[in-house]
Amino acid sequence: MEFKLNHFKNKHVLITGGLGFIGSNLAIRLHELGAKIEIIDALIPSHGGTLFNINPIEDYLTIHTFNLSEFQCDFQEIISKQDFIFNLAGQSNHWDSMEDPLSDLEHNCMVNLRVLEHTRRYNPKARIVFTSTRQVYGRPVTLPVNESHPVNPIDINGIHKATAEQYISLYNSIYGLKSTTLRLTNTYGPRMRIKDANQTFLGYWIRSVLEKKEMCVWDGSQLRDLNYIDDVIDALLLCATQDKAIGKVYNLGSHENTNLKALATLISTIYPASIKIMDFPANRKVIDIGDYYSDFKLINSDLTWTPKVELKEGLTKTILYFKQYFEHYIETT
Amino acid sequence: MEFKLNHFKNKHVLITGGLGFIGSNLAIRLHELGAKIEIIDALIPSHGGTLFNINPIEDYLTIHTFNLSEFQCDFQEIISKQDFIFNLAGQSNHWDSMEDPLSDLEHNCMVNLRVLEHTRRYNPKARIVFTSTRQVYGRPVTLPVNESHPVNPIDINGIHKATAEQYISLYNSIYGLKSTTLRLTNTYGPRMRIKDANQTFLGYWIRSVLEKKEMCVWDGSQLRDLNYIDDVIDALLLCATQDKAIGKVYNLGSHENTNLKALATLISTIYPASIKIMDFPANRKVIDIGDYYSDFKLINSDLTWTPKVELKEGLTKTILYFKQYFEHYIETT
Repeated sequence: MEFKLNHFKNKHVLITGGLGFIGSNLAIRLHELGAKIEIIDALIPSHGGTLFNINPIEDYLTIHTFNLSEFQCDFQEIISKQDFIFNLAGQSNHWDSMEDPLSDLEHNCMVNLRVLEHTRRYNPKARIVFTSTRQVYGRPVTLPVNESHPVNPIDINGIHKATAEQYISLYNSIYGLKSTTLRLTNTYGPRMRIKDANQTFLGYWIRSVLEKKEMCVWDGSQLRDLNYIDDVIDALLLCATQDKAIGKVYNLGSHENTNLKALATLISTIYPASIKIMDFPANRKVIDIGDYYSDFKLINSDLTWTPKVELKEGLTKTILYFKQYFEHYIETT
Repeated sequence: MEFKLNHFKNKHVLITGGLGFIGSNLAIRLHELGAKIEIIDALIPSHGGTLFNINPIEDYLTIHTFNLSEFQCDFQEIISKQDFIFNLAGQSNHWDSMEDPLSDLEHNCMVNLRVLEHTRRYNPKARIVFTSTRQVYGRPVTLPVNESHPVNPIDINGIHKATAEQYISLYNSIYGLKSTTLRLTNTYGPRMRIKDANQTFLGYWIRSVLEKKEMCVWDGSQLRDLNYIDDVIDALLLCATQDKAIGKVYNLGSHENTNLKALATLISTIYPASIKIMDFPANRKVIDIGDYYSDFKLINSDLTWTPKVELKEGLTKTILYFKQYFEHYIETT
């Protein structure tokens, strides 16, 4: 699971959504590996981006603050010089996608299509990694869910992420773009959105705990698998550098599956916290996927990826981070 | 396969894309059935709409000429009074979808999502019929293709039509919208686009024949099934009026399958014409689906639909129509 340091040394890397949770952690790691980083981020208030996320490296990268769904004259120039493109921009909240499906279409389909069109026209040799989501599977028919499970999304966000996956696949097969798709499960760690539950329920639980409020758990019996951010960054870098990953779609996943009540209980052993089990609101329940955990054998056998950070260790690191920088994450933007 | 005349008598019917090939034929039939018809059509020059198409009934309907992908203040009012919504607007050219995928996204996804959002908010009881395409299946794995065949589109247009189908399905399952999706195969008949091959190869063959030019046939061995427009209108009206069709996806298809060379030969028995077999251009071949014909048992058993117009009869009617009105169909819109 090693990649050579020189894979990224002095290489040009673009991260769309680079001020968000995963994008900023990726930028920090790539900076350590010697990459020349450019970030495009729309800083949409309800999404995950904040300038504080790249605070440690802000003097070493170029930030373009614009919305990729609106045409920008200099985008061609930005795309054309990249060796690697990590296409992470997007809207990830399932409920918001139902409330405002047209915005979700814009951020998850139009943006990706624009990035791909520009890449095939102006820089077809760039290596592209796209982050998708387990949401494309909808309600699992079998567990664990591997990449051959039917794609049957049950909300607008899942539909649009599945559409974007098809763009990636088409541009690989027709134009030979060197792309890889990662279907993420719940990712957590420093720099995640904790202000509200827009990104994950877990982010909001962490805020609640640090504010000495109850963690509100809907139902609590749902099984989930979680990945610590460092493991997800490993996967992104492996996908970007291994030829075997070109044209592939990979699940991430965890050895530790947990139900949400057990997860909240684990948090309460790390930091004093109380838990309130609540009924699942009916209008949210209709787009809930029920139990989910991934089979990640394919990325393990192709790229030797495996998650290394245990849940308790990852949660401890995450809570420590947010205890230190709390005020930066509950302010507006 | 009968529907009562009073199903549409004095009913409010909206046809998006109503100046196009299928939309205008539908409007004419619905006018005969006593419906009060409104049409929304953007009259985009490369699409199929032309005012001449509704010439016989132009005094009896309301035409709104605007692009549904751009917000319109009065759209809410239009939607809210309809009993039936036939959602036919769209871009259907596969090659154009590859050349300008963002326009295809706009016309095939954004427009449909807007219509559905407005319907669920302002008129959730309306009956909706959406026309999709066999293109969502991609290259058939088995023939004939039934509705359980994997959805695996191989061009942008197929991807976007499949996405729109998922919207329809989601709005049916989450919000209870009363919708039906028809997956059309090649439809032909009076009022089709013949100016170029933007809508079908067959339209352009008809133009060539009437101009005493060769029909250019790429390869010619590809199997296809074709439906005459009157049979497709029957299917649309059945879907809109039968409860059994709600929430369903149906293929249309034909008893007569033909390869393209045989089809051109059949045309030459109806009207003097010569045929030129040509190599399939490489850049088109990559998005060609190969042989295709549908299994339409499901709509036959649910709604008793079956195609009634034989290919030779339908082609004869079509050529006669265009011989009479030729000049109206080769002018620039």
